Amino acid sequence: MQKIIKLSTDRKNGLYDITSEVVSFIKSSKVQTGIASVYARGSTAAIMIQENWDQSVQNDVVTLLSKMIPSGIWQHDRQDNNGDAHLKAGLVGPSETIPIIDYSPGLSTWQNIFLCEFDGPRHHREIVVTIIATNHL
Amino acid sequence: MQKIIKLSTDRKNGLYDITSEVVSFIKSSKVQTGIASVYARGSTAAIMIQENWDQSVQNDVVTLLSKMIPSGIWQHDRQDNNGDAHLKAGLVGPSETIPIIDYSPGLSTWQNIFLCEFDGPRHHREIVVTIIATNHL
Amino acid sequence: MQKIIKLSTDRKNGLYDITSEVVSFIKSSKVQTGIASVYARGSTAAIMIQENWDQSVQNDVVTLLSKMIPSGIWQHDRQDNNGDAHLKAGLVGPSETIPIIDYSPGLSTWQNIFLCEFDGPRHHREIVVTIIATNHL
Repeated sequence: MQKIIKLSTDRKNGLYDITSEVVSFIKSSKVQTGIASVYARGSTAAIMIQENWDQSVQNDVVTLLSKMIPSGIWQHDRQDNNGDAHLKAGLVGPSETIPIIDYSPGLSTWQNIFLCEFDGPRHHREIVVTIIATNHL
Repeated sequence: MQKIIKLSTDRKNGLYDITSEVVSFIKSSKVQTGIASVYARGSTAAIMIQENWDQSVQNDVVTLLSKMIPSGIWQHDRQDNNGDAHLKAGLVGPSETIPIIDYSPGLSTWQNIFLCEFDGPRHHREIVVTIIATNHL
Repeated sequence: MQKIIKLSTDRKNGLYDITSEVVSFIKSSKVQTGIASVYARGSTAAIMIQENWDQSVQNDVVTLLSKMIPSGIWQHDRQDNNGDAHLKAGLVGPSETIPIIDYSPGLSTWQNIFLCEFDGPRHHREIVVTIIATNHL
């Protein structure tokens, strides 16, 4: 089973919580034991598992990455002026794999799934969720 | 097949080698070709594949992350005073997927699997290992 | 289905594009819907999904990581003098999982798959690609 989640982003850098869409898809799959692979398409986006008690950690992620990877100082800036966005995306990475335990996602209480936008705003971002059941218990 | 590895941690920041538990589970699965997904539950923990010749690289990982992500300067610190732990966990990431090759884990000689603790000590940390066989060779 | 891609590297730090080998293997698998797990063996190498319009982003990745993780200041340097290589490999990580959508890799236009070499040159680097089909659509 596979689903493509689509969303638009409204900021240059920001985290967008896609947990409820992924959880709904896992529940609808009726898979008892397995994995859900979550993959962000686009070389200036990524997937991060992170807390979502409030907006604070999301803001901190943006602040940290902007400090670690400043904009405007990269070779690639001569092409697109978004070298920092590619570097952030590559370091965070586009894929996370989440276990399915007894028909439910194996996320802990404070683990939410976020699309990280590093070069927005964008009208179309796509996240591919692929569910694989274990072949035998 | 799926297994939950449980362990307790005794430091604020530290790496804990779980390779032998994962390898035993892979061997007991009798899967010839496939993958083992390793997932750390908890938004202040992560999984890292790293050398374990001795303690040095593990210490270096803690030193590096503490330098890159200092404590006490994050928005989230007003809630829990552990903003740095969430950021470290998000950047390293909770999931790694390891191939199974001819009934054995595809780790190379110096690749060990570690739980990274960033907000310990904790009595209960859980790592979920899910094994999937390829459907055909 | 599983394949081991072998390559040699010619620099201390560099990115090597393995997209075409992975794409060929996915296409030859005749899997309609599923995932391809890509895994770098060796504790001083990693896998990064990154743009390959030209060499610029690859150079920027090497520059960024050398700035974030300087060489010569780590405990592990007393053993092998390659502490920085292990830290870079651990942070980037050896595994990425790519969806297979309608018999094709779910990479977006500018997402290429790279082996990251952090302790080269090396005669033999191995990347394991494992393909798993979803059990039902």
